[in-house]
Amino acid sequence: MAELTVRGAAPKQDRSRATRRRLLEAAVTCLAEHGWTGSTVTVVAERAGVSRGAAQHHFPTREELFTAAVEYVAEQRSAVLRDLPGTASTHAVVELVVGLYTGPLFRAALQLWVAASHEPQLGPRVAALEARIGRETHRMTLELLHADEATPGVRETVQGLLDMARGLGLANLLSDDSARRGRVVAQWARLVDEALAG
Amino acid sequence: MAELTVRGAAPKQDRSRATRRRLLEAAVTCLAEHGWTGSTVTVVAERAGVSRGAAQHHFPTREELFTAAVEYVAEQRSAVLRDLPGTASTHAVVELVVGLYTGPLFRAALQLWVAASHEPQLGPRVAALEARIGRETHRMTLELLHADEATPGVRETVQGLLDMARGLGLANLLSDDSARRGRVVAQWARLVDEALAG
Repeated sequence: MAELTVRGAAPKQDRSRATRRRLLEAAVTCLAEHGWTGSTVTVVAERAGVSRGAAQHHFPTREELFTAAVEYVAEQRSAVLRDLPGTASTHAVVELVVGLYTGPLFRAALQLWVAASHEPQLGPRVAALEARIGRETHRMTLELLHADEATPGVRETVQGLLDMARGLGLANLLSDDSARRGRVVAQWARLVDEALAG
Repeated sequence: MAELTVRGAAPKQDRSRATRRRLLEAAVTCLAEHGWTGSTVTVVAERAGVSRGAAQHHFPTREELFTAAVEYVAEQRSAVLRDLPGTASTHAVVELVVGLYTGPLFRAALQLWVAASHEPQLGPRVAALEARIGRETHRMTLELLHADEATPGVRETVQGLLDMARGLGLANLLSDDSARRGRVVAQWARLVDEALAG
């Protein structure tokens, strides 16, 4: 009997996990397309093809749904960095890191970030999430660049690079900035390369 | 008689200009504090101590009021750059440029920028405004750094610096990032200095 229960539980858990993922993906798309104000649990549930009740079973509040969605996005972004071979050139690493900040995933995170600056229920939650994501991205970028933080200036060189990537993401919000971005990435990859070598 | 009319017109024009300025300043504060959704013409007029009718006389639509407000902010920011002496160090210039992106004025512009990404009436207007502001800031930064765009790489070094400043502004949105920012600014001022020296 115990075995039967376990066997029966697995597909149910799978279904639950699939529903959760559908909700998170719908939440990210909603945020990117309509901003925080236009993104309600009802809109997301509808988009995911899930009942409002089921959505609230997974995420009791709107804040929980959207911060979980941005966390989910961040994990996908981390996976992209982890998949890069350790032999990649500085240019390839900078290009990839900048790519993390210019896609629809960053667009969704940005909407939440800006909403958090004037929504008290979102503020501390999103600030903590962004700090965690920032640390993780910094750690992986250092590793990919084979950079040693013990060397003075290295930490700030890489931090400034990530700030630049974030600024490029913002510049890409209202118009396609990819041509200019390609040239800035090439030049800054050279500057970072020289700084890390020196 | 003609002279009398002119004399009489001046204070009226002054009053009108003062009302306009009060509306713009109130609009910037509203945007920074409440975001686009919470910023209506009524809220701004009330804050400025101006009747709704007078506000609409100056700015017939909500979009006109808020893009004018961000333009007003941009002019104030430009004035800060213009006042810096031509002998300022690279560190002083980088610090000042980054300062443009970390204050309440940038916070207001950011709210409008993000709203424009999903509000069709705002999109083209804000995109054109941001392009104009970006070009002007770039031109002034080049001048302050005594950098010559004819030298390969210089244009992209300075563009990347402005992108970094924008990213630092974003990083400062949810928490006070000034200590980290000071270290990043010091390091990248060194790197930009070396890059421009050739």
